[in-house]
Amino acid sequence: MPTLSVFMDVPMAHKLEGRLLKSYKQDANHDKMFLAYRVCLNEDGDPWVSPVVKKILLQIAQDPSLNYEYTDGMGMKSFIQASLELLFGRHSQAIVENRVGGVHTVGDNGAFQLGARFLRTWRQDSKVVYIASFQKELHGPVFQDMGFTVHEYTFWDPKQMRMDLNILINVMKQAQHGSIFAIGNIADLNLTQSQWTKLMSTMKRKQIFPFFDVPSQGFSSGDPNEDSKILRYFVTQGFEFFCSQSLSKNFGIYDEGVGVLAVVTLSNQYLQRVLSQMVKFANDLWFNPPTLGPRIITSILCSPALQGEWKYSLKRVVENMMLIKEKVKEKLRLLGTPGSWDHITDQKGTHSYLGLNSQQLEYLVKKKHIYIPMNGRINFTSVNANNIDYITQSINEAVLLTMGSEKFLQK
Amino acid sequence: MPTLSVFMDVPMAHKLEGRLLKSYKQDANHDKMFLAYRVCLNEDGDPWVSPVVKKILLQIAQDPSLNYEYTDGMGMKSFIQASLELLFGRHSQAIVENRVGGVHTVGDNGAFQLGARFLRTWRQDSKVVYIASFQKELHGPVFQDMGFTVHEYTFWDPKQMRMDLNILINVMKQAQHGSIFAIGNIADLNLTQSQWTKLMSTMKRKQIFPFFDVPSQGFSSGDPNEDSKILRYFVTQGFEFFCSQSLSKNFGIYDEGVGVLAVVTLSNQYLQRVLSQMVKFANDLWFNPPTLGPRIITSILCSPALQGEWKYSLKRVVENMMLIKEKVKEKLRLLGTPGSWDHITDQKGTHSYLGLNSQQLEYLVKKKHIYIPMNGRINFTSVNANNIDYITQSINEAVLLTMGSEKFLQK
Repeated sequence: MPTLSVFMDVPMAHKLEGRLLKSYKQDANHDKMFLAYRVCLNEDGDPWVSPVVKKILLQIAQDPSLNYEYTDGMGMKSFIQASLELLFGRHSQAIVENRVGGVHTVGDNGAFQLGARFLRTWRQDSKVVYIASFQKELHGPVFQDMGFTVHEYTFWDPKQMRMDLNILINVMKQAQHGSIFAIGNIADLNLTQSQWTKLMSTMKRKQIFPFFDVPSQGFSSGDPNEDSKILRYFVTQGFEFFCSQSLSKNFGIYDEGVGVLAVVTLSNQYLQRVLSQMVKFANDLWFNPPTLGPRIITSILCSPALQGEWKYSLKRVVENMMLIKEKVKEKLRLLGTPGSWDHITDQKGTHSYLGLNSQQLEYLVKKKHIYIPMNGRINFTSVNANNIDYITQSINEAVLLTMGSEKFLQK
Repeated sequence: MPTLSVFMDVPMAHKLEGRLLKSYKQDANHDKMFLAYRVCLNEDGDPWVSPVVKKILLQIAQDPSLNYEYTDGMGMKSFIQASLELLFGRHSQAIVENRVGGVHTVGDNGAFQLGARFLRTWRQDSKVVYIASFQKELHGPVFQDMGFTVHEYTFWDPKQMRMDLNILINVMKQAQHGSIFAIGNIADLNLTQSQWTKLMSTMKRKQIFPFFDVPSQGFSSGDPNEDSKILRYFVTQGFEFFCSQSLSKNFGIYDEGVGVLAVVTLSNQYLQRVLSQMVKFANDLWFNPPTLGPRIITSILCSPALQGEWKYSLKRVVENMMLIKEKVKEKLRLLGTPGSWDHITDQKGTHSYLGLNSQQLEYLVKKKHIYIPMNGRINFTSVNANNIDYITQSINEAVLLTMGSEKFLQK
């Protein structure tokens, strides 16, 4: 008898690779460019790697004493310790009080997987998660799959062309008590301490549980300490929270998926209990996380000289990126493009909003082959000396052509 | 008001580190030894690393063109391809027919996580999993957490001191139609082809879905091709299955957690559909799996000369291990230890049953400080020139002392 396949009823899944990247790849136009890469690019358009990483990998490869034995259930302890000190500061009161800990995680979604599993099991009354729009595609399914209801929110006010804290405060005010808020890229948010204080008071009142995401500490200001100031402020204000700390992007080892799920609690006793449960989940997920990437990072963070080299490389990335933003703004000014373009330089971080409307974005993609997501948020490290003129001229065209006619492209 | 912890109700979890290892660590006795390590040890008692691994890591570290860009959703394609060719043979009919594929996985549990998620979603009528006893602790919770009912089974017949296929066949006969069977270390099982054929006919009749586990291809016979012969036989017999293929142990990079979930289907059409769904699950689990380990392995597998060096290193491991088994048997014979010890050399693989009863094992642990799990399965690479005399003399004592008095230790 002919055998029937076990998989007969499995349908083809929609490709997750965004339609944008797919269209870009299929586009035969010579001028095409993609401005939504997640990795940070160097001046030549190649993925950036901190130079000290290559040096240390070579040292590790030459170390005759290296063996590759299994790590502890929690992961590589020295790596976790060094990462937490980077995040909270070596002299953080919470670290001294032993109420900050972490589990070594894998991939850009690993910390969310682990945290979501914990919350599903141990905070059963809290099944609502809010995620920033630009992160929903990546982290949303993790929570959805575990039965959470996922809502999205945005900080960006497209009219005022700036981050508006009140949008988030209003979302929180209407959220269910005890909801989980995934809050990404806090260092990019450019809010004052008093604005944060206002937010915190809403969070405390509504018992919001923050699940921070620090995807690239140091890429906002060029200084890792400066970038985690707000997170440290949450610690001193008595918040308990989770934080997904990625160490792939800011070292330039994107494909190593190196991270830590950091846990802050009110006391060491709670921390020990939480971590003991998390080890079980971590074993189920990836018994034995890969350690070559973490070895590189630990070697760098544990040596003041190497850490200095790394910080210098971060600073240069941010300086270059700010320079590119300045140049984009200046070129638009010289072209006489209508509108203020200050929002470009006002925003921190590698990924910022261009502040274009949907007609303008559609024009750039369809007519100029410049691939930009529909939220208008681009990776500014994708802009370089070779493409800046084409990009700014195209933006200028898009703005001029769409002025007065909001619908000319919607035929 | 004093704040209450969000984590107030979280209890301390039981440590997963086995009681055996914990007792071993706490034991102050000078002679203590632990014979249940998962990693393969070299003659000096250190974790074994294939020498070619260190050479290639050095080459990778010196490669100026290396960048660390994100991999595809499926993982590192060249690594998956090389791993599947190692598993199924480069000229496998199924590979030629494009009905074998895989997803790059992370850690020793990654492939089971991914496979279980797929089965939970796409084979909803099949919620029963059977796992071999010695693997249940590691892989069982993965399935349990997703709502599967997990049963355990064993092949080992402690009376006959050999693997008994009929035990498994009987378990399958009584299992629910369409149950999933996690079948580990098939190369160690030492069954004839006709025995496998008998098993296959039961499996087909009961529509059993096999989820193989190949944790260390090459460690049974010293030849990776020989070790996957049975798996290839399943392919030719028209089975569809999943296989967790680990490439950490047989390269000696235990802490890299490198693996592939291999998928065999009846046609390319089904394969494409299954893989398209799996990418979604893989993105949720670990968007962007670490690639330094896979790079090492791919470089080795894709070069005939380096692959030759690697295979030679595997062969030496297995030869040393067989020699140790022979020596253990010979020393027991010279000591006049009652009983036949042929089962020690009859078993393949690094981990084999000593064939001792629970009193004898208890005597070894409590009186001789030799830590062995209660199933009597030890890692034979832990036995070396320094400890073999103590071990065999202790086994001899244990056997002599427990003869005729089954209960003398149970006071």
